[in-house]
Amino acid sequence: MEFKFSDNLKNMKPSEIRELLKYATNKNLISFGGGMPNPETFPMADLKTIMDDVMDQYGSIALQYGNTGGLNELRTEIVRLVRETENIKSSESQVLVTAGSQQGLYELSKILVNPGDSIITEEPTYVGAISAFDANEADMHSIPMDENGLKTELVEAEIKKLISKGKKPKFIYTIPTFQNPTGVTMSLDRRRHLIEISQKYQVPLVEDNPYGELRYDGERIPALKSLDPEVIYLGTFSKIMCPGLRMGFTVAPESFISRVNLLKQALDLSSSTFSQFVAWQYLARDEVKKQIPKTIKLYRRKRDTMFKALEQYFPDGSSWSKPLGGMFLWATVDSRINTTDMLQDAIQDGVAYVSGNAFSPARAQANSMRLNFTFSEDEQIYEGIKRLASVLEKKMSVLQPQ
Amino acid sequence: MEFKFSDNLKNMKPSEIRELLKYATNKNLISFGGGMPNPETFPMADLKTIMDDVMDQYGSIALQYGNTGGLNELRTEIVRLVRETENIKSSESQVLVTAGSQQGLYELSKILVNPGDSIITEEPTYVGAISAFDANEADMHSIPMDENGLKTELVEAEIKKLISKGKKPKFIYTIPTFQNPTGVTMSLDRRRHLIEISQKYQVPLVEDNPYGELRYDGERIPALKSLDPEVIYLGTFSKIMCPGLRMGFTVAPESFISRVNLLKQALDLSSSTFSQFVAWQYLARDEVKKQIPKTIKLYRRKRDTMFKALEQYFPDGSSWSKPLGGMFLWATVDSRINTTDMLQDAIQDGVAYVSGNAFSPARAQANSMRLNFTFSEDEQIYEGIKRLASVLEKKMSVLQPQ
Repeated sequence: MEFKFSDNLKNMKPSEIRELLKYATNKNLISFGGGMPNPETFPMADLKTIMDDVMDQYGSIALQYGNTGGLNELRTEIVRLVRETENIKSSESQVLVTAGSQQGLYELSKILVNPGDSIITEEPTYVGAISAFDANEADMHSIPMDENGLKTELVEAEIKKLISKGKKPKFIYTIPTFQNPTGVTMSLDRRRHLIEISQKYQVPLVEDNPYGELRYDGERIPALKSLDPEVIYLGTFSKIMCPGLRMGFTVAPESFISRVNLLKQALDLSSSTFSQFVAWQYLARDEVKKQIPKTIKLYRRKRDTMFKALEQYFPDGSSWSKPLGGMFLWATVDSRINTTDMLQDAIQDGVAYVSGNAFSPARAQANSMRLNFTFSEDEQIYEGIKRLASVLEKKMSVLQPQ
Repeated sequence: MEFKFSDNLKNMKPSEIRELLKYATNKNLISFGGGMPNPETFPMADLKTIMDDVMDQYGSIALQYGNTGGLNELRTEIVRLVRETENIKSSESQVLVTAGSQQGLYELSKILVNPGDSIITEEPTYVGAISAFDANEADMHSIPMDENGLKTELVEAEIKKLISKGKKPKFIYTIPTFQNPTGVTMSLDRRRHLIEISQKYQVPLVEDNPYGELRYDGERIPALKSLDPEVIYLGTFSKIMCPGLRMGFTVAPESFISRVNLLKQALDLSSSTFSQFVAWQYLARDEVKKQIPKTIKLYRRKRDTMFKALEQYFPDGSSWSKPLGGMFLWATVDSRINTTDMLQDAIQDGVAYVSGNAFSPARAQANSMRLNFTFSEDEQIYEGIKRLASVLEKKMSVLQPQ
């Protein structure tokens, strides 16, 4: 049988990150590629206790089918979580539990985008968002960022241009805090401006906030959702508990949530009931409040280790972002180097990263790369950056014969 | 913000089953509506032990992100499971782990169907399949069944007709064994004919087999997939372990699986790693072989209880299928009764079911209903059928004044 596939995945390529995970089992390879939390942060003992208690107290319902929108008790705890951490006011009917925030990204683009519809993203942006938007055939218009985040004047100009062509974008997608892949955080002024634009042109604003709790320096900046209740907000348990239970959530106006609910029935009926019971108890017992400070302490050290290694080893002419939180930094190298082409050499020399263009709807990040600093051991961070610097120098020596 | 939704969910309605789950918490209501396994069958103690062992032995990887296609060890066990239970020969690269078979249904229709493309289903068919196919804007052509399952001559005629219009269907979807909703099993002759049709016209055949292991009487009939390796086969752990971990799988040719893999990266990155470890150990320890005979014994008794209650209480002129396995039977009542309209009265009188038209792409099942016999207590089955019979008689007395 030769399968005749539909057209809707035509723009999709296998995700470089997911392909790289295959290499992550190679003991000699140091990977800065994956977006993986450090397992040291997983609240192993607490989760084991919670799982036992869930089985003892709720087994027959925790192993059964559940409501599509999510366990009510968990939604109540999510309402509390976003209020306590991000000052977001919401109610249970505005919350939908998702299989990680990846499912939230797929759902929102599926219910808002007809094939060919325009959307606005950051340039560069999260590779998983690109694959969700590609699967729903969105026409991505990516807008450059600087050290204050998305350049909102350019967002407004692009929206005006698209409206004049009858192609008003269906939404604006941003990761305003410790952005993936750049690590950059949007300033408060820019946040206010973006909300103003969203309201003025009636273009929904999507705030993806997986890293908001992982701040290592500086003052918290308010979430977009805390400034405008109309924002579609995506959250996840992957960084404040663990990724392996695939727990995330969307907080949005009720009219939006009920539409997602309809889609989710078709996607998977509901997220794992058992995972939801575990996440509920994890929040209800306030384990998350023990976990976050430990995680921050570990990741701050790892980030600083990577900073030091980069300063020590990386060749002149390279630069990198100085994230105040999150899991990634963004390194930019000699403009003649193509990091996609270089990846195979790097892997051969025992170090991996994700190349800039994997994050670039505009394919405009050829000489950049994303480096994850949360997963590797401290010594591996040193050794990996040293290896990467040596690969770079070899490439540059060919480019610039002495 | 007024959200402007995409067109792709325009045919979707909230699932009656999922809506009914809301009523399932009402202690007075007896629901034959949900498709829920009986929690008595959940291997609670075994799963608790397995979960503890997984946390102790594999915690740091079981709580981490995993491969999109699924845990390798689990795929090896799925290869063994389908070989031992259904005589299906496959390899790990032909297996993809899904979030229940619902995700498998969504995935296959997403990757095969462009909006408006024709597909062939049974009439009536599984309501969750209808919602997955609707979400991907398939044009469903549903073909009647009899006590030997899908009328395959009609399938061939419909395919010929569609081909002559340049609308060759993208796939044929069937639940050949203990079908949902009718409980009917396709005969071996019809199975052979269906495969012949699939091969002759090169229309992929999708076999959904959630209930294959739940046979209470009669001889096993070979799975389509065991007769033709090109078949796309959907399996689930929901009925042989529990639904709450959301574990299912697709077994199909590698070219198909790699396309689904690409989509699944966009959908949810991967299914729950933890759930996959649990399912792996559940199979590896052969717990499933203890579980299935217990489940069969319980469900056979419940089915027979429902048979007895129907014989005792249901009005003349009603009929019902006599399933040899599975979870449902299909009752057909006086042709002037609309079971959708009657549902509200039934719920008011303390009994619920899913009306025939919820399963009918052709909206041709107005006087039928699906009754689940696995979830309720034996006394509830008696009492519920009695209540339902009384609702029916009230309706009929108005239709036929004496």
